[in-house]
This record gives sequence, structure tokens and C-alpha cells, in this order.
Amino acid sequence: MKIIIKKTYEKLSEAAAQIMFGTMYQDRRINLSLTGGSSPAGTYDIVTEALRDCPQDFKNVHFYNFDNVEMEGKEGGVMLSGLYDQFFRPAAIPEERIHPLRMDNWQTFDGVIENSGGLDLMLIGLGMDGHFCGNLSYATEFEKTTYLLKMDPQYEWYETYQKIYGDKVMPEYLVTLGAVSLMRVKHLLLVVNGKEKASVVKQLMESKVGTNFPSSVLKLHPNFTVILDEDAASML
Amino acid sequence: MKIIIKKTYEKLSEAAAQIMFGTMYQDRRINLSLTGGSSPAGTYDIVTEALRDCPQDFKNVHFYNFDNVEMEGKEGGVMLSGLYDQFFRPAAIPEERIHPLRMDNWQTFDGVIENSGGLDLMLIGLGMDGHFCGNLSYATEFEKTTYLLKMDPQYEWYETYQKIYGDKVMPEYLVTLGAVSLMRVKHLLLVVNGKEKASVVKQLMESKVGTNFPSSVLKLHPNFTVILDEDAASML
Amino acid sequence: MKIIIKKTYEKLSEAAAQIMFGTMYQDRRINLSLTGGSSPAGTYDIVTEALRDCPQDFKNVHFYNFDNVEMEGKEGGVMLSGLYDQFFRPAAIPEERIHPLRMDNWQTFDGVIENSGGLDLMLIGLGMDGHFCGNLSYATEFEKTTYLLKMDPQYEWYETYQKIYGDKVMPEYLVTLGAVSLMRVKHLLLVVNGKEKASVVKQLMESKVGTNFPSSVLKLHPNFTVILDEDAASML
Amino acid sequence: MKIIIKKTYEKLSEAAAQIMFGTMYQDRRINLSLTGGSSPAGTYDIVTEALRDCPQDFKNVHFYNFDNVEMEGKEGGVMLSGLYDQFFRPAAIPEERIHPLRMDNWQTFDGVIENSGGLDLMLIGLGMDGHFCGNLSYATEFEKTTYLLKMDPQYEWYETYQKIYGDKVMPEYLVTLGAVSLMRVKHLLLVVNGKEKASVVKQLMESKVGTNFPSSVLKLHPNFTVILDEDAASML
Repeated sequence: MKIIIKKTYEKLSEAAAQIMFGTMYQDRRINLSLTGGSSPAGTYDIVTEALRDCPQDFKNVHFYNFDNVEMEGKEGGVMLSGLYDQFFRPAAIPEERIHPLRMDNWQTFDGVIENSGGLDLMLIGLGMDGHFCGNLSYATEFEKTTYLLKMDPQYEWYETYQKIYGDKVMPEYLVTLGAVSLMRVKHLLLVVNGKEKASVVKQLMESKVGTNFPSSVLKLHPNFTVILDEDAASML
Repeated sequence: MKIIIKKTYEKLSEAAAQIMFGTMYQDRRINLSLTGGSSPAGTYDIVTEALRDCPQDFKNVHFYNFDNVEMEGKEGGVMLSGLYDQFFRPAAIPEERIHPLRMDNWQTFDGVIENSGGLDLMLIGLGMDGHFCGNLSYATEFEKTTYLLKMDPQYEWYETYQKIYGDKVMPEYLVTLGAVSLMRVKHLLLVVNGKEKASVVKQLMESKVGTNFPSSVLKLHPNFTVILDEDAASML
Repeated sequence: MKIIIKKTYEKLSEAAAQIMFGTMYQDRRINLSLTGGSSPAGTYDIVTEALRDCPQDFKNVHFYNFDNVEMEGKEGGVMLSGLYDQFFRPAAIPEERIHPLRMDNWQTFDGVIENSGGLDLMLIGLGMDGHFCGNLSYATEFEKTTYLLKMDPQYEWYETYQKIYGDKVMPEYLVTLGAVSLMRVKHLLLVVNGKEKASVVKQLMESKVGTNFPSSVLKLHPNFTVILDEDAASML
Repeated sequence: MKIIIKKTYEKLSEAAAQIMFGTMYQDRRINLSLTGGSSPAGTYDIVTEALRDCPQDFKNVHFYNFDNVEMEGKEGGVMLSGLYDQFFRPAAIPEERIHPLRMDNWQTFDGVIENSGGLDLMLIGLGMDGHFCGNLSYATEFEKTTYLLKMDPQYEWYETYQKIYGDKVMPEYLVTLGAVSLMRVKHLLLVVNGKEKASVVKQLMESKVGTNFPSSVLKLHPNFTVILDEDAASML
């Protein structure tokens, strides 16, 4: 684990964008798996422009999502539709280079990745409860590649999801790449920003490998870069 | 995890030797980390002859041990002196290509490996209690690179070691590469043979990642080959 | 370039088979590109049995040919049909893991390879006139990926091909991976045996990079292993 | 070869810096080989600040020069002292992470690189006469790793060097990594800017592999990125 602490969120975003560009600007097919949400927003602000304005420079780059869950009104699933809104559409990524993980193709998804040469870079965030991708605390199983995780009311995080779904039907399962899938990624990049994440970052550093704090397992990754802003690093 | 089941121990040894040769016969520096003991004995029988008789074909190959513990009469430590007896001396490996892990250099050992391009192949066995290298059950910490593991009487395995040491002074610590070090190995190879290992092999396949059964963590390795003979695979 | 000299053709074949097995016995998709002909025959004798008898151990392995040329009676082209006869059929490789290069798909073939993660290992022989794959002397262009090479009567080698074709119509072009395609192969393996190849081996070692002796360019490959028997090495 | 054309030299420098950062921000030892001169000046302007101000983020990065030649008043040789002035000193790179190629250690230099895991990235420029590193036209030998190239008055470029040396003694040899050394670099990056280079860029694209235009051989590199500004690309 290599930890990089940047003064500001802008600097963090710049560094993450540099890693994305450095990976994409190679003379071979590049497979990227990306997160949505607020943490990578600054990174996408930088990267989107280049991808949209110079599509010829990135014809070798393919995109994958790493988790998904159904919700009424979210076509293709919450995470995939979120990535379309936040990144794929603004960056004008052609459909044929987007490889969606959905509820109906998860059994073949690790094969799809492997048969394309594997993931070169994955950009992830850190959940308030220590989850990564859709690997939620206690419910995750570290022995898995891509799998269905049961949204079980027995878990603490269930309530959070209930609030998100509100009146909408909450599905029984979400789908996510598992810890085994992530270990195969050639370069794993985690970005975390903001004071409210400071304590979860501290937990990441101090935790034993265990499903109570899923991201703990990422410390085993052979090429793992963590970029924090000073706020997120303030409790280290 | 790729599981290969061979009819006999001889076939298992042949396959493991093929992986060793296939790795060594490349046109670049190759770093191997090896286990001692009975499981790889057949493999070394095959490999030793080639290494001894055609040293010019293997000048690019460097050797590392991955754990060690002191014992009166075992110069350089139990595992290192064992590897010398079983493999390094019969294969006539020159000293300058043997990179020993000892009790006094463990703090710098991961650096030594990293600064040489990393380990290309590691050949390990599986302990009766599920340990790998010196990562003993419950005492191992999966968050570690190379570290000292305390030989603590509180653990079940302690008695086994007491018997091994007999009248000799049992040391307080052993040294071992940790799970993090192993995840960085480019190809991890586990060989297991014999009926008496059938149940521990079954446990390996079924166990959750946990320190109670240390080898469970190896299922996270991105390029992990397991070769079993039919006896060892008989409970799968 | 790493040069390995083996006492006999049998030992050469054993070493080449070890490299093939060592590559295939990994826990990820493996792409192999293979030559036909007499040089690798001994290697295939060893490998075929394992592939046929233990297909479950090699489900991750995909196969590619690297050149081809049409001839009446040779369905799919001379080299492809030769590989089927010599290796693919005896080894019972399923069709879906054979990726043929034909006269009608060469424009997309480098893309097919790249989109599958690239070639892990290519096994080639050495032509009497120094050619590799279908890169014939003077006619080859080192700047090419997969391309059509014109069978032009102006070249010395033309007559040899005329004799091979006899009464059959000689085609205007053959298709072959070019030097650029080969440089991307992760491990390039050349096997040469027999007294009659001794002088061409000597030329390989001594030649400047030039199209007069096409294999000269392979000396630039970043991971290139050459296995010779003592006969082939007798002029070194 | 992947060709990226940027509107301005500033954009070119930004992209090259992104590739450098993307490579350096990994969780493993990184070996960089760098050129001096005007082409990378803009890149170093961006990179220097980060290296100097956040040395803790780059402790894993080691630096190598790739050619050198003696000149009175240039301690350590022209290229090495140039890199110190232009980059190593401003960026405050510690001595122990600078691995100099000098006239007296060239025989072991490829070994030094190989024993450190190989070069991850090399940044080069393009000479007006098509040379790369110290591989001067007609005098270069593509079959070489690191070697001494004779400064022979028979070659056209000799006069240019004479002018550079003026009254100072012109040495008999320069030292340079050869084409074989460069093929082993994991990512090769060439930056070219300015109208005066437009015709040499055109030649690079159109030339056959040959020592008359040394950079022609780089088209064989398996992972080769070329970044041009619009001026340098104006004749394509």
C-alpha cells in the first residue's frame, strides 16, 4: 500500500487523473474499472475533457463498472446509470468500449475481463462503513470473484439502503466484483477525501483483515495506491 | 486458484518441475523462493540434475528462502540450512545467487526482493494445520510483509514445535514472509501430496479467509496454481 | 537472447515442452502461437498427451497460428491445416480455443490478439534461409504487424515454393505476423535442431539486423529463448 | 506505436508529465531513464516541483541516464551532468536513487538495470538526424545492449559534434544503451516538438528499419508512445 497525501481535493484529483492518463496513454488495450460518486468527481472533471475532445487518443481504452443494483427509474442499474451520467456520456465514450456488469451477466463477467487481458486500473472509493465496491460489511465473502450479495435486513447497513430506496422496491441482491477479482487488477487506486472520512481512513490503516471492515482486505493487494486529501488523512 | 490433480506424486513432481523450468528458461533475471520438506522432494530430484549439469543455462536465476528459525546445530537457521542440504548444495547453486532470510535481516528483506524485480515464482507446501511459510494458525497477521512471529505457548501448534526442538532451546520468534509479501509473487505454486493431507486440502478449498487456517488467504492470490496428487485430492 | 544448448533433440524437445507447460499451468488465460513442421514435432509428442488426457487442466489456454498460405487440398490454408494434423486434432483442442489466421481475416488479427490480452508464448522455427513465420528474406518488412507478403518471382526463395506447389496453383500472397507483432509476444521461443541448420544458426548469431536474414530482427526481442541441439549449435 | 498529437508544447509536456506521474505513483520500485535537452524541459518543469516538495511520495523511484560522453568541464560526462543541472538537482533526487552510466561502467550497466527489475519508463527525444540516445546514424548497431560507439570522422554527424566540442578535446567514444536495451523498457515515451523537427518526424513514420535513420528501429518497440505538438506533426 502506497499512501499519498495531497493538500487539497483538487491536488488529489489531479494525481488520480495523472494515474488514469499515464495508464491510458500506452500502446496497447487498456481496461479501466471505475467508481461513481463524489470522491472521483474532481478526477472526472479533468479526464472528461481530454476523452471528449481527443477521442482518437483513447481508442485503446475500455471501461467496466464493478458493481450494480436495480432501482426503479435507473436504467441498467444504479451504478451503471450513474457512471453514464457522471462520466461515460460527458466523456462521449462509445458504447462498444463500455462493458456493463448487470444482474443478468455477473456469472460470466470475470471471464469477460480475463478474456480481454484483465483490468489495468481500478479506481474505487471508500464507504463510510469501510465497504469497497458492493462488498458490504459482514455480508461480503473474501473468497469470491463476481457474486451476488444478499441485501439482508440483519445487517446494519440495510437501513441506509432502505432510506436511499425510500418508496421504491428494494431488491434482494446487489452484484459486485469480489476481493478475488480486485486482487487481479494490475493497479488499484483508492481516493478518499473530506473530514467525514478521516476516521474510516484511520480504520483502514489499523484494521485487521476481516469482513467487519471489508476494505481491510485491500491491504493485501500487490499494487495498491491510496490518495488522500489532508482532511481525510487528518487522523493518521 | 487453478487446481491440477495428478495421478501420482511423480506426475505432480514433474508438473511442478515444468513450471520451475518454464520460469527459469527466460531471457531475464528470475527470482525463485522455495520451500524445503518432503512435498517438493520429487520436484527437486528432477530440477537438481539440470541445474548442476548445465549451470550456464541458469545464470539468470536467483534463490530466496521465505522463512527461518534458529536451532542449535542448524547453521543459518533451520529452513535455510535445510534448503542447502536438500537443494542448493546438490544443485551447486553459487552463493552469490542465494539470498538468505535470517533473523537479523528480515527488516530489509522485502526491500531486497523488490529491488531485484520481485519474486517470479514461489513454491510452497501446505502445513497439516493449514499454515503456509511460517504463518502459523491464529498467530499470523495477514497485514504483514516479512515479520517476526512469536512462538507463543498459547497456540496449539506450540507443542509440535516443542517436540521438534526436544532438548534444544526453543527460540522466541521465527521469521517469515507475510501474506502481503506472497500476494506480490507473480506465480504462486502450492504442491500437496499424500492421503494424510487430504483433509487439510479440503479445508483449504472450503475455508473462509481467516487466521485460524492461514492458507485460506492464498485464495486471494492473483496467479495461484495448486498441484495435488490423487491422494491429497481424495476428499474433494 | 538466451541460448540453451541441449545434447540431443529429445532434450531440446523436453525443454521446449517444459516452457509450454510452465506457461500453460498458470491461473489466467494463456495465449499460445505455434509453428508446425519437424522442429517442434518432439515437443508436441510430449505436450499432446497431457492436453488430450487432462483437458480440464488447460481450459485457460488458447491457440493461434502465425502465418498461412492457400493451397488446393489444404482446407483453411497450409499452415493451419498442418497444425490441425500435427497438434490441434491429436491434442483434442476444442474449436472455440483455436483462433485461426486466414487470408480473409488478417486485417483484424492483431486486434484479436490484443483484445485477448496478447500472446504469452510463441514457438517458432528457423528457416534454412533465415526466415521466421512467413517473413521471407528481402520480401519481409520489419515495420509491419500482420500483413500480406507478396510471393514474388524476383526472390530466391520463390523457386523453393514453386517446387512445393508443383502442379498446384501458387498463390500471389501469403499472410504472416510481422516483426512488430512478434516483439509484443511476452516470451518468444525458437527451437532449432540438426546439422543442416548449423550454418543458419551461426548466421543468426552473427548477422546484422536486416531483411536479407529476417530472423536477425528477433535479436531485438525483450524475452527471447533459443534452444538448440548440439548439432544445430555445432558451428558456434 | 501510439501517436498522440497535442495542440501546443505545453499540452505535450502535460501529457508526458502525466505518464511520468502515472508510472511513479505505483506501489513498487519504479525505474526511470531520462533524456536531457529542450524537448523534455516543459515536462520537467511540471514534475520537478512535485518531486522536490513531496519527496516521500517518490521514494520508490530510481533514475538512470541512457548515454554519456566525456567533455572537459562536464563532471561525470555531458549527459549526466546535464541531467543533474536540468532535473536531478532541482528535483532534489537523493544520490542513492541516481544510477549513472559512465564510460567506466558500461559493461555492467544492463546488468544493473536487469537486477533492479528493468526500466519501467524511458523518456527520449528525437535527434535532427534521427538518432535516439547515443545511437548515431550509420554508426549504431541494432544488435547491441549498452556499448561504446566510435566517434568516427567518416560520419556526417561528426562535424556537428566537432562544433560542440570546439577547442575542447573530442573523445574517441560515447557510451549509450543500444536498441536491444530499449526494447526491454516496459514503456517507451518519445516527445518531439517544434516545426524544425517536422521533417524528421515524417521520416520516422515513413522510414524502413535501418541504421541510416536509427529511430526507425523503435517502431518495433512493444509499448511505444510518441507525443508530438502540432508543429512537429505538421508534415504528417
